[in-house]
Amino acid sequence: MDNGTASRRVVIVGSGFGGLFAAKALKRARVEVILVSRTTHHLFQPLLYQVATGILSEGEIAPATREVLRGQHNARVLLGDVIGLDLATRTVTSDLLGETTITPYDYLIVAAGATQDYFGNRHFVDHAPGMKTIEDALELRSCIFGAFELAEAATDPAEIDRLLTFVVIGAGPTGVEMAGQISELARRTLPGVYRNIDPRAAHVVLLDAAPTVLASFGNKLSGKTARHLRKIGVELRLCARVVDVDATGVEVEDLQGRRRIPSLCKIWAAGVAASPLGAQLAAQSGAKVDRAGRVQVQADLTLPGYPRVFVVGDMVSFPGLPGVAQVAIQGGRYAANQIARDCAGLPTGQPFRYHDKGNMATVSRSYAVASIGPLRIAGFGAWLLWLVVHLIYLVGFKNRFTTLVDWAVAFIGRGRSERTVITQHVLSRNAARPRRNTHDDSPTASRQHAPTPKR
Amino acid sequence: MDNGTASRRVVIVGSGFGGLFAAKALKRARVEVILVSRTTHHLFQPLLYQVATGILSEGEIAPATREVLRGQHNARVLLGDVIGLDLATRTVTSDLLGETTITPYDYLIVAAGATQDYFGNRHFVDHAPGMKTIEDALELRSCIFGAFELAEAATDPAEIDRLLTFVVIGAGPTGVEMAGQISELARRTLPGVYRNIDPRAAHVVLLDAAPTVLASFGNKLSGKTARHLRKIGVELRLCARVVDVDATGVEVEDLQGRRRIPSLCKIWAAGVAASPLGAQLAAQSGAKVDRAGRVQVQADLTLPGYPRVFVVGDMVSFPGLPGVAQVAIQGGRYAANQIARDCAGLPTGQPFRYHDKGNMATVSRSYAVASIGPLRIAGFGAWLLWLVVHLIYLVGFKNRFTTLVDWAVAFIGRGRSERTVITQHVLSRNAARPRRNTHDDSPTASRQHAPTPKR
Repeated sequence: MDNGTASRRVVIVGSGFGGLFAAKALKRARVEVILVSRTTHHLFQPLLYQVATGILSEGEIAPATREVLRGQHNARVLLGDVIGLDLATRTVTSDLLGETTITPYDYLIVAAGATQDYFGNRHFVDHAPGMKTIEDALELRSCIFGAFELAEAATDPAEIDRLLTFVVIGAGPTGVEMAGQISELARRTLPGVYRNIDPRAAHVVLLDAAPTVLASFGNKLSGKTARHLRKIGVELRLCARVVDVDATGVEVEDLQGRRRIPSLCKIWAAGVAASPLGAQLAAQSGAKVDRAGRVQVQADLTLPGYPRVFVVGDMVSFPGLPGVAQVAIQGGRYAANQIARDCAGLPTGQPFRYHDKGNMATVSRSYAVASIGPLRIAGFGAWLLWLVVHLIYLVGFKNRFTTLVDWAVAFIGRGRSERTVITQHVLSRNAARPRRNTHDDSPTASRQHAPTPKR
Repeated sequence: MDNGTASRRVVIVGSGFGGLFAAKALKRARVEVILVSRTTHHLFQPLLYQVATGILSEGEIAPATREVLRGQHNARVLLGDVIGLDLATRTVTSDLLGETTITPYDYLIVAAGATQDYFGNRHFVDHAPGMKTIEDALELRSCIFGAFELAEAATDPAEIDRLLTFVVIGAGPTGVEMAGQISELARRTLPGVYRNIDPRAAHVVLLDAAPTVLASFGNKLSGKTARHLRKIGVELRLCARVVDVDATGVEVEDLQGRRRIPSLCKIWAAGVAASPLGAQLAAQSGAKVDRAGRVQVQADLTLPGYPRVFVVGDMVSFPGLPGVAQVAIQGGRYAANQIARDCAGLPTGQPFRYHDKGNMATVSRSYAVASIGPLRIAGFGAWLLWLVVHLIYLVGFKNRFTTLVDWAVAFIGRGRSERTVITQHVLSRNAARPRRNTHDDSPTASRQHAPTPKR
């Protein structure tokens, strides 16, 4: 370690946008940085839906955190799940495969982000994975492509219908992007590869309890997005509350009453809940947490009474801060800068100001919406902008390059190269009862009661 | 289906080299082709070790079979695990998630390949995955990169040693390539990213019961390979028999007696056993099977007494045919051609002739060995040759392109972009007992008996 001279230690919890950018911003500060993370990679979450839908490989959006910080000699990564923050003893307790590590800190930046919120319906998670981790995306990938495979093999029209019905719950950016991509997949990528089914018959349903999609983008863009989604064949079910989710479908309640949507592949993109570490900080500092478990911090993102403990990103409840990457990035950099100033004996405490660089979401290939300051743009221009911005922010040159190639293939062409189906994933989702049928010359096979061979 | 006029149906079992190339070779034949496969992808197995070691993404070596056959309208893919071949009723029985399909055939091409052979020690598979499927490769990827992560976090020198010891069992091409790649990873890719460990301290052990590596390549290349492996830091343990494999290590017996090698990450690249379908065919046709379960076929690759049933690739026991991709490709094409001729009323039965295009294996970046006819080359030239040949054979232009980029990054540079660690995979392998330690200023942390917080 060539930072033996470093007098103070900054411990950062989380390798997401907030944590990683905080660590990078401390590169020149005379401190020792320890980034504690439960994953070995930084996740470029805004593109997770492209991993789930077969456009990008996991490596392209999840560079190894150590690789990103390779050259930053005052920083080290500690792999582990943070299970305890102690403001009194100023220590972070993390667990790695049952092994506990206690790390003392001088400054603490908590950027543990948020997880999917199932609003108390924990069993939903078994049937409708969220969109928060690489594991989620890979499971969804197998489930989505697997659904078409099972439909191709199925003979019962009702079952084929169920297999080709994809239900996306939550019409925020993630939900809209997922719904749009699955529809693209069914309408552009897959037609021609199957012999028994027409993938265009796939049914993509986008559900939300709210009356609009992309509410945060304002009425104008929200309306345009809804129109475009319908145009590309996505069925919108707004003001619809999900009552239950099980292996075979989704139970929905809307103005027309209670209805069941049979579906194999369900995606949960509804609420988010801040990391439980937020509650820990609140309990020890007396800070308030909102309903999503986000901590109410001071104007300088510190915990009340703890000027050396910062909370950034999705864990923060702060007037006018949306749960987007930019908030985490700017918050992380701000906290790092405050710490650097404090170590250098410079005055600190200037309130954090979020510079809203705008907000964008892709609805489909060549159609995106962007709200930048007073600007509200929708369509191809917004999509090009989206393309450029995301390429610039992708961490690591190589990823950027192959990503460009993958995008060219998916957007100019219609291929999707990352569609490996892991059978276990499909098995874990599917609830098909054993049936028998013979596969004869007719496209849809007629049954025959052949004895099922023992395995 | 626009092949309603097709009078005869060819059923192909397996989407590997044999099956896929047979299907493609039937493109112009007036037959209906049904390819039955348990995976949705064709697997470019010769590069599987690069997925395991983080160079390539799974999509790059596993294109969707349907995509490859997209334009071939006389072919369809039936997803399913073939559980029965009935030569009397001329039917193939396959199972998909408990659903049985019976497919009648006029011609049958069995190309179900081989699986890893644990020589009766089934429990080895839990601790030393093979190198046969995408799932194997992804699990090994997590295990290999996860081992370095756990070592960085560990404090007990003996445990660090165990975590950094990689044991590859079997010194054939796959074993040699894996050992070489792990060594490259430790010596070129990872140095600089860790703070507590030096990845160069990693210990790669290549075991084989035979006295030589790459025996099939002849003494000259075998010797050169052994020397180069030692040069890049691989420890060779030849004439060594694996007695036992468990979670914490490998038990080996060699001339020095019985020895234990503590290791987290073990890779099984020893024997292969033909698909059990071979035994089924033998039982019904009276054909002989060899010890590896491969079927002894006629000179025209047909089953004795069944001129319309072909067996190709790794399932075939045929004088002078090694278990390589070329044998499967040429066998598949030959069988397709025989069938096409038969359908066209042309004479068949010309014996199959294998055109040995040579054999190659990469030992490390810029070092490969190739045996082509009388030629025996080793080194950079052979490696360039390997590069070109594999690029040409990679199915699908796009894969070929990003693969080239990934190779440029890995071979010219030293990056590896596909190293996502799936935590469950590491958890499933690791057998670390709970320990506690504190993480203080010293690189290797001293213990402290802090109570382990409840989770």
